[in-house]
Amino acid sequence: MNTLVDGVAQDHIAVRDRGLAYGDGVFRTLRCEQGRLLAWPRHYAKLQADCAALGIVCPEAALLLADLAQLAPASAAVKIIITRGVSARGYACDPSASPTRIVQVAPLPDYPDSLRTEGVQLRLCAWPLSIQPGLAGIKHLNRLDQVMARREWQDASIFDGLMCNARGELVEGVMTNLYLLQGNALYTHPLADCGVAGAMRGLVLELAAGMGVQICQQAFGADRLAQVDALLLSNSLAGVLPVRQCGAQSWHNFDLAQQLHAALLEQARKESIPCCPV
Amino acid sequence: MNTLVDGVAQDHIAVRDRGLAYGDGVFRTLRCEQGRLLAWPRHYAKLQADCAALGIVCPEAALLLADLAQLAPASAAVKIIITRGVSARGYACDPSASPTRIVQVAPLPDYPDSLRTEGVQLRLCAWPLSIQPGLAGIKHLNRLDQVMARREWQDASIFDGLMCNARGELVEGVMTNLYLLQGNALYTHPLADCGVAGAMRGLVLELAAGMGVQICQQAFGADRLAQVDALLLSNSLAGVLPVRQCGAQSWHNFDLAQQLHAALLEQARKESIPCCPV
Repeated sequence: MNTLVDGVAQDHIAVRDRGLAYGDGVFRTLRCEQGRLLAWPRHYAKLQADCAALGIVCPEAALLLADLAQLAPASAAVKIIITRGVSARGYACDPSASPTRIVQVAPLPDYPDSLRTEGVQLRLCAWPLSIQPGLAGIKHLNRLDQVMARREWQDASIFDGLMCNARGELVEGVMTNLYLLQGNALYTHPLADCGVAGAMRGLVLELAAGMGVQICQQAFGADRLAQVDALLLSNSLAGVLPVRQCGAQSWHNFDLAQQLHAALLEQARKESIPCCPV
Repeated sequence: MNTLVDGVAQDHIAVRDRGLAYGDGVFRTLRCEQGRLLAWPRHYAKLQADCAALGIVCPEAALLLADLAQLAPASAAVKIIITRGVSARGYACDPSASPTRIVQVAPLPDYPDSLRTEGVQLRLCAWPLSIQPGLAGIKHLNRLDQVMARREWQDASIFDGLMCNARGELVEGVMTNLYLLQGNALYTHPLADCGVAGAMRGLVLELAAGMGVQICQQAFGADRLAQVDALLLSNSLAGVLPVRQCGAQSWHNFDLAQQLHAALLEQARKESIPCCPV
């Protein structure tokens, strides 16, 4: 893995960084293919919004792009972490602290075509998502919920785990957003007091609406799985994936997932920019 | 500040440490005076319990004490952070990862005697505490709630801010546990689905019970402040503090706080061990 911290190649950060002490920061995971960052404007807008929500100064896009030009990945999973920076002991922030900017490049995960043609297998996690309206939607560094949920299985055939919140509402996957197709309506949790509003979630909803699918952002329980025609997942690395099975339920309608994936990839490539010197 | 990481003097950690990526770890703050760690067995037991709750292997006490002997503080705020260690991209843990052990020594905060004789001033924070039964009580590294609440004020005369959860229950201070005295009963939130059960909280409740005070762990709202005879705070660095004022409410009964502080200090010193070579 190649890493830059504040533009300098290094594999460590200050032990007093608030990202370590408090998870005081945000992050993004992006897909880079053939030297181009997919859906960059969408990711950068989300990074800005998440920083603003926590009161962290978001680095200029030009700085991040200069970092990426230095790392010059061809195909990669790019991770950007912005923390509030280094400060002394205690929760109070040193107002003079400047944010820490971390850019990492790692190999893309190996997602075979069969995931898209045969659908993925899920499980239902026992770990509940925290209820916190103040942090809902933000991709921040307080991710113990996801860590604890991901510890529930070792079986490599399980692609992701679905998580409910403490009220029993089915919200999202550990590393994906979740959509339920019933008739011509696509249901997804509104994420008003829990969950992560992924950058691809917005694009999926836009594209589905453009295909004439009705979008319903509303809460539902895990019992709803028995009633729906198809389950879909999205994230920035995998795009849109159809679900084959979750526990006792199974689905065979992969059409919308495949159409949305093709449309999402096309749009994400249209919105891509080169991340190496061209 | 002096820091050891895995027993080695250094001021940085690996950028791939899960403590940074996910807040995947726990911490302790302890008071060291005249080379002795106050209430060490209590702190170590809590560290073990918090590590166990997250499935992190807790380092042996001997390792931590050897670190502290190397740092050899006289009077200090000691911070111990244990993370799940370094792993590759993604929420799944590398089972071969070994925990990262960070021991830091910083000057004790300057708490004048007047805080104890005149009481401290508080404010009520707007930021709600997350509801999460799985993490309640644990002093983990997902501390954005405290960071965001602490950002609500700059006034140095405010010692701490009180936090409610999303259900409107008054739970604790940003950096303290909270107790309400009404008649002969001491009320404190049960922390079943939010909050941090500080190491000193258990000792305060033991000591108060020993003084004949009735202990009531139950939920209450911020409106309860208007009805109580005294407010008390505790943490490991400050001991027990009386509250003089919070918003429009004020209190003048500091007796129990002062008695509990003296008893807590005596017991914490009894339970202390030397942290430098003697």
